[in-house]
Amino acid sequence: MNALVLQSDFGYADGAVSAMYGVAETVCNELRVFDLTHDIPQYDIWEASYRLIQAVSYWPEGTVFVSVVDPGVGSTRRSIAVKTASGQYIITPDNGTLTHIKRMLGISEARIIDEAVNRLPNSGESYTFHGRDIYAYTGARLASGIISFEQVGPVVEVSSVIELPVVEPELTKDSVSGTIDVLDVRFGSLWTNIPRNDFLKLGIQHGEMAEVTITYHTRILYKYVMVYAKSFADVNVGEPLLYANSLDCMAIAINQGSFSKAYSIGTGISWRISLRKAPRLVYE
Amino acid sequence: MNALVLQSDFGYADGAVSAMYGVAETVCNELRVFDLTHDIPQYDIWEASYRLIQAVSYWPEGTVFVSVVDPGVGSTRRSIAVKTASGQYIITPDNGTLTHIKRMLGISEARIIDEAVNRLPNSGESYTFHGRDIYAYTGARLASGIISFEQVGPVVEVSSVIELPVVEPELTKDSVSGTIDVLDVRFGSLWTNIPRNDFLKLGIQHGEMAEVTITYHTRILYKYVMVYAKSFADVNVGEPLLYANSLDCMAIAINQGSFSKAYSIGTGISWRISLRKAPRLVYE
Amino acid sequence: MNALVLQSDFGYADGAVSAMYGVAETVCNELRVFDLTHDIPQYDIWEASYRLIQAVSYWPEGTVFVSVVDPGVGSTRRSIAVKTASGQYIITPDNGTLTHIKRMLGISEARIIDEAVNRLPNSGESYTFHGRDIYAYTGARLASGIISFEQVGPVVEVSSVIELPVVEPELTKDSVSGTIDVLDVRFGSLWTNIPRNDFLKLGIQHGEMAEVTITYHTRILYKYVMVYAKSFADVNVGEPLLYANSLDCMAIAINQGSFSKAYSIGTGISWRISLRKAPRLVYE
Repeated sequence: MNALVLQSDFGYADGAVSAMYGVAETVCNELRVFDLTHDIPQYDIWEASYRLIQAVSYWPEGTVFVSVVDPGVGSTRRSIAVKTASGQYIITPDNGTLTHIKRMLGISEARIIDEAVNRLPNSGESYTFHGRDIYAYTGARLASGIISFEQVGPVVEVSSVIELPVVEPELTKDSVSGTIDVLDVRFGSLWTNIPRNDFLKLGIQHGEMAEVTITYHTRILYKYVMVYAKSFADVNVGEPLLYANSLDCMAIAINQGSFSKAYSIGTGISWRISLRKAPRLVYE
Repeated sequence: MNALVLQSDFGYADGAVSAMYGVAETVCNELRVFDLTHDIPQYDIWEASYRLIQAVSYWPEGTVFVSVVDPGVGSTRRSIAVKTASGQYIITPDNGTLTHIKRMLGISEARIIDEAVNRLPNSGESYTFHGRDIYAYTGARLASGIISFEQVGPVVEVSSVIELPVVEPELTKDSVSGTIDVLDVRFGSLWTNIPRNDFLKLGIQHGEMAEVTITYHTRILYKYVMVYAKSFADVNVGEPLLYANSLDCMAIAINQGSFSKAYSIGTGISWRISLRKAPRLVYE
Repeated sequence: MNALVLQSDFGYADGAVSAMYGVAETVCNELRVFDLTHDIPQYDIWEASYRLIQAVSYWPEGTVFVSVVDPGVGSTRRSIAVKTASGQYIITPDNGTLTHIKRMLGISEARIIDEAVNRLPNSGESYTFHGRDIYAYTGARLASGIISFEQVGPVVEVSSVIELPVVEPELTKDSVSGTIDVLDVRFGSLWTNIPRNDFLKLGIQHGEMAEVTITYHTRILYKYVMVYAKSFADVNVGEPLLYANSLDCMAIAINQGSFSKAYSIGTGISWRISLRKAPRLVYE
């Protein structure tokens, strides 16, 4: 039997997540249910998308993810189930939550949930908690094998799965640039969308210096050199570093400090970052 | 084997919840243990009661809940185990935690925990952590079938189960009134104790306007019209709405905003709310 | 099969904990995985150590704990696995995380993790997330029986396991003194390192008064009498009390208040506390 993993913006303080668990256990009382996180900021589809790419591929093939960040609950937005290129399933409102999965991991098949069939019995009068009544219910039935992926509903084109706007990283001869995608909340690191493999083409080795420029719209907020390190332990406490994060993208941090707080750096496609070899300092 | 579901006001930051889990796993290492929430505000029995009614009935029959919000630990307050009308068990200090379950779902049988028998071996010298030493231990033994419900202890009258004071919703010919019971923390919605079925007797259809009046003691804090919507997506972002929540009671929200913050509305039996058909505006 | 219990300072807001769970499930999809807490303050090795002693011994023999508070990730700090005197395993960076376990519970055997063997396949290029790539992976393989404790790596002397500096409690004829080790976050209580058995040698009975003195370096911050109580319910709301906590050490609290906030008391080895029989008040 496959695992069911839940994500939402519901928080842990009330009974909503537990009601979803209860629905899953009622579907099958041997089902293994886990959390991705329920602390996605409210309505923040971008972050829901990012947390999926951070975790999904580390789970076994066949694992079923349910992600419910759903500002359009009750609207005509589609409910969708996809199979990733690495064999996991994700069930979610089709509102951009699959942006990173579609681009970075790949979707091999997409189906629209047939809500006439895949809905918790006797829940027809509640229109505000599809996380419980449709998504957790359908996810539990898929994970436990009561329904097949085909029985979720009709196939749709993968290309029709909605994506949020993104800005692609760009590699030139001397530099690589991209966006600051997300904040590592607890440690204040900035995670970019620049793949390590692109960065490596600049010919910078571990221990060498890189120049980092961060801009917000037309304003430069940071421009300085820092070491390209294997890990935090390569620099002193309080020292900045450039490193490859656990998703194999480039990231910036201050060892045991918060880079985002130190320089008031935010996230999103208006926050651009550029990396190049540090200039040689010539004293004359 | 039945599931065990834990609730408390211990938070997730220290080792208390994990010690309860460990006791449960030591009782039976195949037991499936889950959380309702551990973020009940400290000593807030009312909210513990509300979170139970929000989740319990979505779990399978036979599920055992343990709820530990226990300002009277070590006093003569009783420790109680009840069977709900829908077949789940709840183990808790008898301090009002069962208020909503008793009134809205129903209790079919109540038993006092015989602490001489149902106590973690060698825990006799600790008087401050009954959650671990009595409640989790007894809950795990009941869920795993080591003891039957009868073996928890002697039967007592269901009427003796302690209830916090409540104010019943009241239906007149033109309006229905009640109290603001709880806040949907993350989304700022106000949940009332007015059942949808009472509200429907006013003859207001989806899409029609209702007048909402909120008072705190003798003061009116809000009086305005809003649409009775199926879900948030029926109104614009920033627009207020009246809707039936996931417990089939009436609730008020601002789409993607916070109604409670916007008008400084609180919860409890001094916060009254009244709903009626919106008056027809006549210009003369 | 044994349970796997995870602890870290990663928080619950992103996908890091779920990636660790995914690795564990990929190792063995029947493995039972639980949390101790992931809300250890960042880099706070002392608190990680304390939360382990609070929870470990309540879990069954054979349970495998993984604790990742790792400011030195990527440095030459050792990765270690130990067997406790009560039969649980703990896998962690060897940076002081085992301080309380080594002193209070006891370590019966210690082994260094052979990272050449015990590392998630294809994770060789990531240097910043050993929690996922080494600790969760090795913990899952040990818990599920794929490797034995011997296969973790070579034995080292238990005496070589790193300890943070501590100050031992001291018993004189009239008083017992020690340090304030940790705060009970949600309830504002202060937990000391003074064992109840030492305190009892002062001959103070439940219901009798003790004099409590708290100093920070050379400054006295609190000196007053309070009752030695069995539990919070023995005193009025708002009244201070001295009691034996759930670890059988002495603790101080205000019933339904916060002692630490009331007197701005902190934790650590510079915070000393002394207990003695209250002086008899003689009016002349």
